[in-house]
Amino acid sequence: MRNLLMKVNYDGTRYDGFQTQPQGNTIQDHLEHAILHLTGETLKITGSGRTDAGVHAYGQPFNFLTASKIPLERWCLALNARLPQDIVVTEAREVSLEFHSRRGAKRKTYRYTINGNRFPDPFQRRLQYHHPVKLDLPAMQQGLAHIIGTHDFTSFASRKSTKTSHVRTIFEAHMEVDHSMCRNGTADQGVIHTYITGSGFLQHMVRIIMGTLIHVGEGKIRAEAVADILAACDRAAAGPTAVAQGLALWSVEYDEAGL
Amino acid sequence: MRNLLMKVNYDGTRYDGFQTQPQGNTIQDHLEHAILHLTGETLKITGSGRTDAGVHAYGQPFNFLTASKIPLERWCLALNARLPQDIVVTEAREVSLEFHSRRGAKRKTYRYTINGNRFPDPFQRRLQYHHPVKLDLPAMQQGLAHIIGTHDFTSFASRKSTKTSHVRTIFEAHMEVDHSMCRNGTADQGVIHTYITGSGFLQHMVRIIMGTLIHVGEGKIRAEAVADILAACDRAAAGPTAVAQGLALWSVEYDEAGL
Repeated sequence: MRNLLMKVNYDGTRYDGFQTQPQGNTIQDHLEHAILHLTGETLKITGSGRTDAGVHAYGQPFNFLTASKIPLERWCLALNARLPQDIVVTEAREVSLEFHSRRGAKRKTYRYTINGNRFPDPFQRRLQYHHPVKLDLPAMQQGLAHIIGTHDFTSFASRKSTKTSHVRTIFEAHMEVDHSMCRNGTADQGVIHTYITGSGFLQHMVRIIMGTLIHVGEGKIRAEAVADILAACDRAAAGPTAVAQGLALWSVEYDEAGL
Repeated sequence: MRNLLMKVNYDGTRYDGFQTQPQGNTIQDHLEHAILHLTGETLKITGSGRTDAGVHAYGQPFNFLTASKIPLERWCLALNARLPQDIVVTEAREVSLEFHSRRGAKRKTYRYTINGNRFPDPFQRRLQYHHPVKLDLPAMQQGLAHIIGTHDFTSFASRKSTKTSHVRTIFEAHMEVDHSMCRNGTADQGVIHTYITGSGFLQHMVRIIMGTLIHVGEGKIRAEAVADILAACDRAAAGPTAVAQGLALWSVEYDEAGL
């Protein structure tokens, strides 16, 4: 048996998230189906984590044990030929039999994208939350800084979360603004990317952080309120869950060199 | 009557080009339909030019005469509410009654995008020609330089062209490579954008130039052959017509300040 680690890019618009569901319209279902067609093996892949319905990913790792002797360099093309166009496997390598893409993940980064320009971008609309309301970006950045560190993130987790601990560590978080599509002077505030890197994330965590930061940006709450919301350990204290389409899993890092 | 100049972004994937067609699935048809719904006027808009089926545009100008008294600042939102999501009007201004968006256009820039990475990009696939064959970029740039200047572009025009003159002037042309999506080392050569600015373009001209440059990049012909192909004034001398999806109208410039 070989343990193969692969990475997959997907436009999540049409899918019910990464993890397998009874109706079968998930990234995992499509990947397992492609592997079955290629090797004849009915197997379960292990993803680096779940993503919600409509969420995208760049280079999401997954691994699986296979008895197939297909050479490593053929896997990507062979799987892509059996996958829909909006799911693309981009890397394949062999790893030790102990490697587990979820348990081994040390740092994950998510990116959330707000198109703050007056009009939607027809080319990027599947990947952006179009929100043409004036946002106070420095206040949002101040609010974002409060989540860095080790905290109980109960306020920023779905009430459906079944995790025994809601303590997570955020290593790094920052915002970048892309003005390249601005065409309407001051009415266009740019495309705002927020990058959040942490040890792990609870269900809806990035989206609730973003919904709360948007409230900060709109002046509905102060930046300092983010610290109070964290301390409250109460989902009701935070803002709404921002829409899924703006969210993408951006990278997953492991301790092993080169993964 | 007022003469209104607007700009429109569109993902051309689902459409039969800009200019109206009997079956009605063009950008112009959708814009005129939206104007009819908004103002009750059955009118013809004038585009800055045609685009082929599947070609995209960023800020393509069009203008029309209207008796409507709708204030200028309301037009974009009102039209966008009546347009499909992949067609977005981004600017509206009043211009002199003599202004004509096609006859007045002095410089047009097209961008052609080749994804030269090993795998397609699920997020940008509608806007790129995925061509994972090793390309000699310096040779392509040398070939591209030969088209700058005033030439008879018969070799780079569709045989169906009905223009009396095929002489056009290319003011500027260059290539840019974006490595941000490279993940596979030397197997990924980047996303290659080619920008060509000219006085005007014949049917399929940019796509035939690109099909020819790809032959240069693949080593099938030498860069210097582009000069010979131009001189031949024969469509058969040039390379194939590159696929439409990689092409976007990038900008249109007028002499009038601020347009």
